[in-house]
Amino acid sequence: MEFPSKLIENAVGELSKLPGIGRKTALRLTLHLLKADTETTSSLAEALAKMRFEITYCRTCHNISDTEECSICANKLRDHGTVCVVSDIRDVIAIENTGQYQGVYHVLGGVISPIEGIGPSDLHIDTLLTRIPDSEIKEIILAISPTMEGDTTAFFLSRKLREFPDVHISTIARGIPMGGELEYADEITLGRSIVERQRQAK
Amino acid sequence: MEFPSKLIENAVGELSKLPGIGRKTALRLTLHLLKADTETTSSLAEALAKMRFEITYCRTCHNISDTEECSICANKLRDHGTVCVVSDIRDVIAIENTGQYQGVYHVLGGVISPIEGIGPSDLHIDTLLTRIPDSEIKEIILAISPTMEGDTTAFFLSRKLREFPDVHISTIARGIPMGGELEYADEITLGRSIVERQRQAK
Ligand SMILES: [Zn+2]
Ligand SMILES: [Zn+2]
Repeated sequence: MEFPSKLIENAVGELSKLPGIGRKTALRLTLHLLKADTETTSSLAEALAKMRFEITYCRTCHNISDTEECSICANKLRDHGTVCVVSDIRDVIAIENTGQYQGVYHVLGGVISPIEGIGPSDLHIDTLLTRIPDSEIKEIILAISPTMEGDTTAFFLSRKLREFPDVHISTIARGIPMGGELEYADEITLGRSIVERQRQAK
Repeated sequence: MEFPSKLIENAVGELSKLPGIGRKTALRLTLHLLKADTETTSSLAEALAKMRFEITYCRTCHNISDTEECSICANKLRDHGTVCVVSDIRDVIAIENTGQYQGVYHVLGGVISPIEGIGPSDLHIDTLLTRIPDSEIKEIILAISPTMEGDTTAFFLSRKLREFPDVHISTIARGIPMGGELEYADEITLGRSIVERQRQAK
């Protein structure tokens, strides 16, 4: 596809680098911005740049946060004895939206994937292990998508967590379809799978 | 959907204003940008802002252009005796991609739509009419999507063009499905519909 303007070409090129956006869609979005007032584009460009350059992560749970400690960790009304371990911030958002969970989180930042070259040291596993001693943590829920990489990660974690015999390890209840991504689960299924979580045998 | 960060919330909010992008997709795009290096976001934000604020239009045909005269109008090898009238810059791109058309263009900037409050004076019809006298224009092809609004626009134009009895008026050949949008036509159909255009009776 050839464009009559380098400016259009660049905009389409950058937009079509985004996942799921092809060149036709990128052109459609570009022409939409061109028809809308300039404010629409400047707001979008500024929001993206601000998000990317100013974002910070909670020092405790690695959730995205505008402050040093995220609003979940800072909330005294949450159950700080229960930590839900997820791979991704998307999962935090999905579980929060169920309104079924009152504990806190730990965001790994991915799953173990030998194919993509992601090993345990690339994830926030060390901070999970150092977070437990001298804390009020009584239970750790492994809420990791039941994919092959997710299962590998959960297996690795439950091995590591054996060094804390007083901490119960659970996995979210079956109900999430096997091989399914957590974030696509409907709220009822996901909420129930948290409530009916299964305690794991040591 | 609640977000743990105002920065994320703003980015998702701005992205989901784009046509065809819901909040789930917007979140996915935002988290993709967050995982990618900062360069990815700054390039995208800059390309969009630059495109929106620096874009100019060809003074002759209203095609998008980085210069006062677009590359098609400036090309001496094109047939300046044939003008293809389209509603939108998307249509110029689509027709150019067929490689079947050697003439020049005139971009109306929309179609007559009483429902959306778009009348003839909101389109670049006046510049089309002033462009004809003392020019080498021999034929005007009305390449407007055969929708109700498109047909109304074509009818209005062919009436106006009666004041130039020496200029032939054609419409693109049948082949574009009725009610179909020009830009979705495959290249072969669209290319043939230009070559086999139908001269309109006066
Ligand atoms: Zn936190
Ligand atoms: Zn031009």
